[in-house]
Amino acid sequence: MYAQLKQQVFKANMLLPKYKLITFTWGNVSQIDRDLGVIAIKPSGVEYEHMTADDIVIVDMDGNVVEGKLNPSSDTATHCALYRKYPNIGGIVHTHSRWATIFAQAHRPIEPYGTTHADYFHGPIPCTRSLSKEEIEGAYELETGNVIIETIGKSNPLHCPGILVGSHGPFSWGKDGTQAVMHAVVMEEVAMMAWHAKILEPQLPPADSVLLNKHFSRKHGPNAYYGQKK
Amino acid sequence: MYAQLKQQVFKANMLLPKYKLITFTWGNVSQIDRDLGVIAIKPSGVEYEHMTADDIVIVDMDGNVVEGKLNPSSDTATHCALYRKYPNIGGIVHTHSRWATIFAQAHRPIEPYGTTHADYFHGPIPCTRSLSKEEIEGAYELETGNVIIETIGKSNPLHCPGILVGSHGPFSWGKDGTQAVMHAVVMEEVAMMAWHAKILEPQLPPADSVLLNKHFSRKHGPNAYYGQKK
Amino acid sequence: MYAQLKQQVFKANMLLPKYKLITFTWGNVSQIDRDLGVIAIKPSGVEYEHMTADDIVIVDMDGNVVEGKLNPSSDTATHCALYRKYPNIGGIVHTHSRWATIFAQAHRPIEPYGTTHADYFHGPIPCTRSLSKEEIEGAYELETGNVIIETIGKSNPLHCPGILVGSHGPFSWGKDGTQAVMHAVVMEEVAMMAWHAKILEPQLPPADSVLLNKHFSRKHGPNAYYGQKK
Amino acid sequence: MYAQLKQQVFKANMLLPKYKLITFTWGNVSQIDRDLGVIAIKPSGVEYEHMTADDIVIVDMDGNVVEGKLNPSSDTATHCALYRKYPNIGGIVHTHSRWATIFAQAHRPIEPYGTTHADYFHGPIPCTRSLSKEEIEGAYELETGNVIIETIGKSNPLHCPGILVGSHGPFSWGKDGTQAVMHAVVMEEVAMMAWHAKILEPQLPPADSVLLNKHFSRKHGPNAYYGQKK
Repeated sequence: MYAQLKQQVFKANMLLPKYKLITFTWGNVSQIDRDLGVIAIKPSGVEYEHMTADDIVIVDMDGNVVEGKLNPSSDTATHCALYRKYPNIGGIVHTHSRWATIFAQAHRPIEPYGTTHADYFHGPIPCTRSLSKEEIEGAYELETGNVIIETIGKSNPLHCPGILVGSHGPFSWGKDGTQAVMHAVVMEEVAMMAWHAKILEPQLPPADSVLLNKHFSRKHGPNAYYGQKK
Repeated sequence: MYAQLKQQVFKANMLLPKYKLITFTWGNVSQIDRDLGVIAIKPSGVEYEHMTADDIVIVDMDGNVVEGKLNPSSDTATHCALYRKYPNIGGIVHTHSRWATIFAQAHRPIEPYGTTHADYFHGPIPCTRSLSKEEIEGAYELETGNVIIETIGKSNPLHCPGILVGSHGPFSWGKDGTQAVMHAVVMEEVAMMAWHAKILEPQLPPADSVLLNKHFSRKHGPNAYYGQKK
Repeated sequence: MYAQLKQQVFKANMLLPKYKLITFTWGNVSQIDRDLGVIAIKPSGVEYEHMTADDIVIVDMDGNVVEGKLNPSSDTATHCALYRKYPNIGGIVHTHSRWATIFAQAHRPIEPYGTTHADYFHGPIPCTRSLSKEEIEGAYELETGNVIIETIGKSNPLHCPGILVGSHGPFSWGKDGTQAVMHAVVMEEVAMMAWHAKILEPQLPPADSVLLNKHFSRKHGPNAYYGQKK
Repeated sequence: MYAQLKQQVFKANMLLPKYKLITFTWGNVSQIDRDLGVIAIKPSGVEYEHMTADDIVIVDMDGNVVEGKLNPSSDTATHCALYRKYPNIGGIVHTHSRWATIFAQAHRPIEPYGTTHADYFHGPIPCTRSLSKEEIEGAYELETGNVIIETIGKSNPLHCPGILVGSHGPFSWGKDGTQAVMHAVVMEEVAMMAWHAKILEPQLPPADSVLLNKHFSRKHGPNAYYGQKK
């Protein structure tokens, strides 16, 4: 069962090595089928070179395995928390990609210094607070999801489809797994450029908000005119 | 119609992924046929992996579609403004390439620190001022062209065949689309090196103007002796 | 003889160019067969493009050649010193990989700024003191092993399976040659990220030790739950 | 005539794109046959993708074309000056490789921060003074050779087989063209690492000279023991 969903999630996972977002098994993509109430996710610790669509694990909304011979990603509880909270999220990605992780390690948001950022992310990409001792030693992966939710607050998660977990690395999301990967790629690009712009000009403020709004809305607003008619 | 022009512009566009100047669809190349008064340009938001020469859009000097099923690049009005203003420009490129965009985000020109720069660009590669609220919310892409023209001022655009649009990214040009891409590659190289030279030596002045003039003129001056006789 | 061991060490050596850890011949992998008391190691100065499994040299615990037509790596005495001292080490790697070597040149440990580090290394990756004139002009490669042992002190070498030799470069180890290479890859990743996190935030402290312990133990502790059941 | 020499120089030139030392045509390799008194060198401005061994130009010790349909590299006079001055140099390379050029632009030597450097270069890789107005506007390429010779002074050029020309880029040499390219690769590696070590530790001194001497002599001294018996 779930052959199509598994295939989609497999393909989305294989975009991680294609876009050089991962080393070894340091990343995972999931996608939800909200009609069936199941989530497909990468198995834990399986190498990308050897993974097949059949290795993808199907779990329910609480992370219990529904189908699959392998353990799901150790980050499954984080993914599930986000799917339960946000009905408009269809796919989630976690990686330790270099540039986004650098900002996560430095506990700094990625500021919107230009239009590349604003074409996908409205406002800074925030960094969560550090987890408490109780959160780390308790249901750690669930608490990671909770601190992401706490940081998003009342915002629409699709307006800023990514976040940095402090001392850890980036999570991103989208309407499906493939789009979530695309957002992971964009985070990496804008993090790389933000790092260097900031070092070149230490007092650099974010770009003009009028410009940022223009770029976000020309791609995502009600009168978007970028790309082709759908 | 316009098969040859489309083919040339298609090939020039495909140089962008070859030289790693773009992520996804973040870039476009155009080329003008001044005899016919038409411009060929990349379609908006079409992935490079799937694009064919037939997808290239033909527009007139005001950006109206003359031939093609797809929408032209959302930056078409910027390209057209430059073609209308400068009769010696034959091709234009826009990308969000990493190193040039870093300087654009930092609102800094790329200073000529060496002969690599001077072999193609005479003087610093300037960065435009920020657009006003009215310009952004008005005819944004046209105004982007206008601020480029304002920054070039009375200079010959082929003496410095590229510019940074503040908070946005680089534009470059040349006698045709292929040469415009070459200039985009050079901008990326000199931006990468200028960034690191400046950080290594914060008070670094531009290179000696006698040396810069020598290198520009040995490739582009009336007595140029670089390369083969044409 | 030793065909299987040679083959394994050959394959592990070929991972160095695959993971871009080396330039030319600047690196070597060895692996020990403790039952037979022999170590297989890369020959000195042989190019990776032309090396075959048959070129791998077999030496005894003191570095004397047991089998092989070529000279063993000039670093053989360093490898042997570590194998003699630590019975739980099965494979060793030395490279001049860029990011780890940068920290070695700066005589700085790689601080644990995040979970990527903690997933493999418990605590900072230390840098040895400089060797004395007598050590350098004496049995230099053996003394390099000795200063590594001095720096590890009473720690379990598998809890932090890598080290920086000051002014030189990284050594790493593991249960076999392949795992030692994996640890060399991880050192390179965490060094690259630590460099940039530190420059972005000069006062950055190491990540919370509770978080670091959690990540190390979820992969390596008695109740590890990362990956698949073995 | 000169088929073998042309073939060797062609192959050495093709190593430049292989090792990613060049963009477009920004580099050239030459090699001398001292018995015949001729130098083979890359033609000027010819793209590496389209070059054949037959395009290599043969010049005499003064740079006059002896055989070949194309113009020799515009840097030919620099190469010839070095061959005339140093009878122990057999091949020369010039590139605009990123990291070495950064140091040249910053007018800084590449300090020997570790053993990677000392394995090939004895002491810092120096940067020439700037050329005077008269030198630039006179026999510029010859004067570039002269300022390299002035900077080498009384040293043996093979003890430090490379140099930075201020505001320009690196030159390197060796016993033949292939070894000169190898030295260009090493310069790029050590420049990249020196840049980052210096930024990480701004007061970083060069590595201990005893260690540097040890590494240079274990590869190049009378009792060298790195590699295989020749």
